[in-house]
Amino acid sequence: MDNLPFVLLGSPSAVPDIVYATRFNETDPVAVVRYPEGRTVLLINNFRYGGACRSTAGCEVACPASLGIAEKGGLNALLVQALRKDGVTAIQVDAGFPFGTAEALRAAGIGVRLAAESPWTKARVCKTADEVAAIRRTQSVAKAAEAYIGSIIEKAEVREEDILWHEGEMLTGERARALVRSFLLNHGTMDFEGTLCAPGPQAADPHAVGSGPYHTGEWVVCDIFPRDLETGYWGDCTRTFMNGTPTPELRQLYDAVAEAQRRALAAVRPGVPASTVHHAVEACFLEYGYESGCNEKALAYGFTHATGHGVGLEIHEAPRVSVNADLLQPGMVITIEPGLYYPELGGVRIEDTILVTETGYEIL
Amino acid sequence: MDNLPFVLLGSPSAVPDIVYATRFNETDPVAVVRYPEGRTVLLINNFRYGGACRSTAGCEVACPASLGIAEKGGLNALLVQALRKDGVTAIQVDAGFPFGTAEALRAAGIGVRLAAESPWTKARVCKTADEVAAIRRTQSVAKAAEAYIGSIIEKAEVREEDILWHEGEMLTGERARALVRSFLLNHGTMDFEGTLCAPGPQAADPHAVGSGPYHTGEWVVCDIFPRDLETGYWGDCTRTFMNGTPTPELRQLYDAVAEAQRRALAAVRPGVPASTVHHAVEACFLEYGYESGCNEKALAYGFTHATGHGVGLEIHEAPRVSVNADLLQPGMVITIEPGLYYPELGGVRIEDTILVTETGYEIL
Repeated sequence: MDNLPFVLLGSPSAVPDIVYATRFNETDPVAVVRYPEGRTVLLINNFRYGGACRSTAGCEVACPASLGIAEKGGLNALLVQALRKDGVTAIQVDAGFPFGTAEALRAAGIGVRLAAESPWTKARVCKTADEVAAIRRTQSVAKAAEAYIGSIIEKAEVREEDILWHEGEMLTGERARALVRSFLLNHGTMDFEGTLCAPGPQAADPHAVGSGPYHTGEWVVCDIFPRDLETGYWGDCTRTFMNGTPTPELRQLYDAVAEAQRRALAAVRPGVPASTVHHAVEACFLEYGYESGCNEKALAYGFTHATGHGVGLEIHEAPRVSVNADLLQPGMVITIEPGLYYPELGGVRIEDTILVTETGYEIL
Repeated sequence: MDNLPFVLLGSPSAVPDIVYATRFNETDPVAVVRYPEGRTVLLINNFRYGGACRSTAGCEVACPASLGIAEKGGLNALLVQALRKDGVTAIQVDAGFPFGTAEALRAAGIGVRLAAESPWTKARVCKTADEVAAIRRTQSVAKAAEAYIGSIIEKAEVREEDILWHEGEMLTGERARALVRSFLLNHGTMDFEGTLCAPGPQAADPHAVGSGPYHTGEWVVCDIFPRDLETGYWGDCTRTFMNGTPTPELRQLYDAVAEAQRRALAAVRPGVPASTVHHAVEACFLEYGYESGCNEKALAYGFTHATGHGVGLEIHEAPRVSVNADLLQPGMVITIEPGLYYPELGGVRIEDTILVTETGYEIL
């Protein structure tokens, strides 16, 4: 199957492999064909051809006019015509390829084979120096945003009903998020997928965005994951803050997560299965007496998610740091983000994005 | 085929039908099954089940634990198990359905048929009153942002080499975009897909984002299309501004586009084919003597794009206001955005987002 052209089709902003293969990053869909001999071609409609020629790298650009064919029938028709022109009778695609295009190709007599992953997805797992530099830049903004919002929470004024106030206004999940968003934008990044600022019991759901007033004595989980507006690379950082002093119970929850992160990090080096890192977290929580599971309402509690994930042109990409056996390799950029979640306590999560190095890891 | 369940699968943020069907809006993928009898079910993994139960509307939520099955094999496996549990032997999907999932379903003995569009996509073409209100709100922010940046361009100081300065700094495409972005964020919206602020010759490419200094006497195309952070609905507005006085040639370019927009709007009413509106623009430009085509380098010039597109949970959605025969219907929200582009002159585009009403249209 390696001798078949590999095809991507979709909006570059939704298919990061297209951005990786061509550096083209727009909303409207394009197709990309990589021929077995190494040539990569971006297919686009006539009116966007000029712009695409100027803003792509590492690929050729073709449109109906440049191929000398009529522009009709949209991108599927253009793809069929371009493949036929090159005598292609079968292609390979990945799992995310649009079913409608696959059916159109098959109807036109072009076979479509499902590959486990694209050559670009495979290449993207280990980052180049340029990619690490891009992620490092985004991550530095995410960390600065954490320091900024953490300081606001910790220094906030406590008024009636233990509610926090900042600069004369109530400090809420909505306001904390707005402050973080402005900070990110002022530093050349945007939180395209949101920012989580979940206080107290809300944080028992690891994906809660957070709303309403913050109180003294409760953990606030701040998960900040911006994308750089220039490079398109993401960063990902979580800190859990508190105004005031934790109860022994809440203190232990935090300490267990911090210790789990230390043990996970200590397990990171090339050649180690991702699952080893994940199991280090699980073992740590059991040692502390924190159990995980699903209650009678099917609600998950304890350590309910993976230890981490790759970060790059996607906020969540390979490798997952979970029960999978993928071996860690130098150049991988992954998060290490253990967390504990209980409806009666809320949640704590601590997350850093790290680079797997030849000898271990580096926190970005 | 209408008696087959319809299935969606993907990230809600990339598949707006999922948001429309369930009001669930997250990054990570889910599946949605709509059964012929009308029941809609969101399928999700265990750890996100609680959050999904709280943040969905108009659907049931199910996860492996709630269905009493083991959680393994990811979303494809969950979908197969859920469909089997209900005795489903074939489903229908739309063109964007992931090919990998289609192959997994077929391998599990479940037929997959391609439908022209999903029931949600069909429903989304005509907006409910709530949707119109949401778009109206976003659009009011987009228009305010246009007024803001337009005033800055028009009032900018002209210094050496005709370059514009604002508050002591050079006014560039990058700076104008940053100003617009901050404005949008301060008004509860974000330009997830970018903002175009293209000056002079750059604007000959309708998708150019714009960079470098602005000059007096050149048109600057500002295309602002934010999404509301609360509702997820888009707005879309383009204005073309100039500091100083246009040459007669540049003045006529603007006048022709303004007149084309008036004629397009005059053609809008229920029952009229979208193509009639598009042809009104084409006829107007020909009358003014502006030709369109592709040059010997395959670069498009003149009126190079469609007259407009639907706006809603997607920035570009049905109906296209182009050569297609779709009939306009009350409740459609579309842009009317004629433009002219010539390498030697630059570009002019004027865009409003309108609601098709029972008797004509309303500019939002």
